[in-house]
Amino acid sequence: MPDYQAPLRDLRFVMDEMLDFPSHYARLPGGEEASPDVVNAILEEGARFAREALLPLNQSGDREGCLLEGGEVKAPKGFKEAYRQYVEGGWPSLSAEPEFGGQGLPHSLGMVLSEMICATNLAWGMYPGLSHGAADALRHHGSDEQKATYLTKLVEGVWTGTMCLTEPHCGTDLGLIKTRAVPTVDGSYEISGTKIFISAGEHDLAENIVHLVLAKLPDAPEGSKGISLFVVPKFLPDADGNPGERNGVTCGSLEHKMGIHGNATCVMNFDAARGFLVGPPNKGLACMFTMMNVARIGVGIQGLGLMEASFQNSLAYARDRQQMRALSGPKAVDKPADPIIVHPDVRRMLLTQKAFAEGGRMLVMFTAQMVDVVEHGQDAVEREHAEALLGLLTPIVKAFLTEVGFEATNEGVQVFGGHGFIQEWGMEQLVRDARITRLYEGTTGVQALDLLGRKVLMSQGETLKVFTREIHKFCKAEGDNPALTEFVEPLARLNTEWGELTMAVGMKAMNDREEVGAASVDYLMYSGYVTLAYLWARAAKLASQSLGGSEDAFYRAKLDTARFFYQRLLPRTRAHAQMIQAGAGSLMAISANDFGLGFEI
Amino acid sequence: MPDYQAPLRDLRFVMDEMLDFPSHYARLPGGEEASPDVVNAILEEGARFAREALLPLNQSGDREGCLLEGGEVKAPKGFKEAYRQYVEGGWPSLSAEPEFGGQGLPHSLGMVLSEMICATNLAWGMYPGLSHGAADALRHHGSDEQKATYLTKLVEGVWTGTMCLTEPHCGTDLGLIKTRAVPTVDGSYEISGTKIFISAGEHDLAENIVHLVLAKLPDAPEGSKGISLFVVPKFLPDADGNPGERNGVTCGSLEHKMGIHGNATCVMNFDAARGFLVGPPNKGLACMFTMMNVARIGVGIQGLGLMEASFQNSLAYARDRQQMRALSGPKAVDKPADPIIVHPDVRRMLLTQKAFAEGGRMLVMFTAQMVDVVEHGQDAVEREHAEALLGLLTPIVKAFLTEVGFEATNEGVQVFGGHGFIQEWGMEQLVRDARITRLYEGTTGVQALDLLGRKVLMSQGETLKVFTREIHKFCKAEGDNPALTEFVEPLARLNTEWGELTMAVGMKAMNDREEVGAASVDYLMYSGYVTLAYLWARAAKLASQSLGGSEDAFYRAKLDTARFFYQRLLPRTRAHAQMIQAGAGSLMAISANDFGLGFEI
Repeated sequence: MPDYQAPLRDLRFVMDEMLDFPSHYARLPGGEEASPDVVNAILEEGARFAREALLPLNQSGDREGCLLEGGEVKAPKGFKEAYRQYVEGGWPSLSAEPEFGGQGLPHSLGMVLSEMICATNLAWGMYPGLSHGAADALRHHGSDEQKATYLTKLVEGVWTGTMCLTEPHCGTDLGLIKTRAVPTVDGSYEISGTKIFISAGEHDLAENIVHLVLAKLPDAPEGSKGISLFVVPKFLPDADGNPGERNGVTCGSLEHKMGIHGNATCVMNFDAARGFLVGPPNKGLACMFTMMNVARIGVGIQGLGLMEASFQNSLAYARDRQQMRALSGPKAVDKPADPIIVHPDVRRMLLTQKAFAEGGRMLVMFTAQMVDVVEHGQDAVEREHAEALLGLLTPIVKAFLTEVGFEATNEGVQVFGGHGFIQEWGMEQLVRDARITRLYEGTTGVQALDLLGRKVLMSQGETLKVFTREIHKFCKAEGDNPALTEFVEPLARLNTEWGELTMAVGMKAMNDREEVGAASVDYLMYSGYVTLAYLWARAAKLASQSLGGSEDAFYRAKLDTARFFYQRLLPRTRAHAQMIQAGAGSLMAISANDFGLGFEI
Repeated sequence: MPDYQAPLRDLRFVMDEMLDFPSHYARLPGGEEASPDVVNAILEEGARFAREALLPLNQSGDREGCLLEGGEVKAPKGFKEAYRQYVEGGWPSLSAEPEFGGQGLPHSLGMVLSEMICATNLAWGMYPGLSHGAADALRHHGSDEQKATYLTKLVEGVWTGTMCLTEPHCGTDLGLIKTRAVPTVDGSYEISGTKIFISAGEHDLAENIVHLVLAKLPDAPEGSKGISLFVVPKFLPDADGNPGERNGVTCGSLEHKMGIHGNATCVMNFDAARGFLVGPPNKGLACMFTMMNVARIGVGIQGLGLMEASFQNSLAYARDRQQMRALSGPKAVDKPADPIIVHPDVRRMLLTQKAFAEGGRMLVMFTAQMVDVVEHGQDAVEREHAEALLGLLTPIVKAFLTEVGFEATNEGVQVFGGHGFIQEWGMEQLVRDARITRLYEGTTGVQALDLLGRKVLMSQGETLKVFTREIHKFCKAEGDNPALTEFVEPLARLNTEWGELTMAVGMKAMNDREEVGAASVDYLMYSGYVTLAYLWARAAKLASQSLGGSEDAFYRAKLDTARFFYQRLLPRTRAHAQMIQAGAGSLMAISANDFGLGFEI
């Protein structure tokens, strides 16, 4: 069975040493609660919960899956009990506002915990995970009464939430939804329609489920401008706020999926279910994006957690498994063969996992600081800056970390050789679970259009400049630091090129909008590598300063990993840069009819 | 349910127009049997068999899996009946020698059929698939009596074969095997030990199973020089050659795997099983490579089949599924949204599948010609040339086609969005089935060492030159063809660079052997892209000559795909070239102890 230790030392490096979270927290209102001692205690407790309560259920949950019987869904054995512990531990309320029963700690802290949960049991993590988005939508757009009724219960964790967006005929294109909301005399609405792919849509972990549902009012405008958001509880709250009458929303069936078997992915039928409008009519898409942005970063963290889990277990295997001799001569002379970690290509795979996981952790925590500032920052200029940067980084966090997360979990399988394909070892489950992260909450292609089209080009490149200026400043400051030349020089070049490539695509796009879509995914991946290069350079700076002390080995390994990232992963930008510049021509030339002439008769 | 049409038009392009198979067959002894009419009839019949008999069992076989009861394995429903049809159709004997009951047709023809089988039902295809390797080992190394007893049955298809190499503690490093062979008075051996990952090790499709087993004689030298090959039948043939007494080889358990659920992957226990030495004692590794090389090309064909299947179905979905409007304005104005094939990024994914599948088909058939020549060629010089080129291309076919096969089947899932993750659509099964192809018969890392270490560097680069000279000749001949400049110029550059990179690694390796392993996988991928670039340039030449005729659309699509390959896939060589040159330093620096300092306490 796979093992897992939360990377507490690495988190300390990123949070305390690199990004100075102690000062960051001290500046947030109420942040004094998040003292280093408190933070450490929470991380250690979270690590224990993930390892002891969730990890043992990951493989059994995958094998068992969920069961739909008489309209009720049973989660795999042990899931309910783990959820009870989670609620009793106070985890759901960690970073929620005190006025709704929360502990008022910074959001970033919840994101660290989330990595540990995703690393040990993604399918389980999706039950409480969806609640965050639902809670956020209510917090920002709900009425006071809705907050009192639903938000407090979500914060407490006794109820969970869902996001009901997708329908059989539309996912990305929500303007096409058919679910209807008909006003009734008491001000509520009757919601009717079918939603699919609803994670945690029905289950036995919590006493009630709060569905956030996109639907159309009778006279709504066409398309995405005519979407409204509704809250539709599974049980309508009674006068005391407890689950009362069963509402007309039921699980029609469960999907059979490639992975995350332990999570109930439901077809939800709304049959004149009673719902309540959240926010203004026809403004549901904006409200939905509130949920969505939180969820997108959450999915990026899933990618991070899965690659850390895969890395730790393939490392253990590579140290243990003996096969062949090192090319340069035997290393373990007393053994019949050397442990496979001596082989350069095995090291390449392990270092790929390590560099992406540790770099991904830096990216997530870098982004998490902005989330804190956007939510609670006291300085308007600072908040605006964080908001711009957060907008830019959100699609990168979501898509880049899930793309490389899928690669890294696959490297984990590859290190195991044939054994990686066998379920018992648990490595292939990480791949199957990781596969969904490239798809849900907007595919990589959708994130890429958001990044290049909405964030970068629609702002005339201004949003990008917010970031490239920061990178430029770093490169200038470290320009004459000989210890960092190997990092700063390529970083400065890439940073300049990033701007140039953006300009070039922008110019082409003025003549042909298809150029945006043609460049988008390569642009996103390119952006991800440069972003990680910036963070790895900062890590290298810190590590090089800390060599020679009592933790010399830790900092040396960090520096070695930075070097590996620059020498063996960053060159991928050479391919992406060329492909961005290649333009739309070779994509659009072939007619849709002619794609299949090799096999169509 | 996924559909599939064998790509007969594309096969005609590759076989008849591009690689002139009619002349190739005419020059082989007995090749006159393989007239264009016969070949066409066989391909059409094979296409029908794959589509009608195998495709309908692919998803059900995946869901059902295999069942071990009382030592007997039951394959999924319908598998046995499909195998009966396969044998009755004469398919197992297609390219076997007439003296053993074969039809004497060229091997390349069997390889085309193999693509169709892998595209429609890989798990099923593994039952007869392993017989080829076993038959080849017997044909080359077996005694006349062994051939008469076993080979004829394998050719007829009434018995199937296995390759029993891997043991729990060793796969790649076969020198470590523990299975023992003790001579008995009658000249046979008692084989005892445990073999794992034995595909089709036990099943109910055929009346007997012929295991080819690696084991050690009592006084065998240490390591790989002390391995011998044995034939161990499930039922010992009686005096009439029919299955007689049950031998001491049994299936101990079935593996639970990520994919190819319909194939029985067995733990095989040999308990003083009666076996017969094949080839000379202690020369088993050489005999094993006979099986292995055939099997390696076979696995490359699996990658090809799976990507073709994925491509066809994602194409159908992309034409049907309506979502969003084209960035440049609505295309299907009468519909609520445009079919997603209008979006450049969806086209990028489809063209990636198409370019790899069609390019992979060229590579397989190019290699197939060499297999024919090596087996049956009449001219010694020609045979030697083919042998060298085949040695070079075998690891590329195996590893490159399975690496890009995994990518392409994943693109198929991505085109489907969230639906790709749902089992019902069949796209995720192709990914799960494809995952094993990067592992078995030698992982990508093992193939890469074979290519760079054994094939290229051990020959002082001579084996590579056999191929680069051919590419150089093509570039020179087409140098002043303006229609091909966009292909020939980059190809010539890459071809030169290929030699330079090889030389550079070779020089470094003289000081440090680890440099070979450090460069190997990037070198293999680089080699794969250049090889496909050469074949795509040849295809482009042909297509550009054929424009304007009655099949203008077909040739135009071929040219468009060549252009896409050059503009959007070939730039990946820029990354691989840099990573090859980066050397071993950043891989070897970090100590095995320090990899885990971020999480180890």
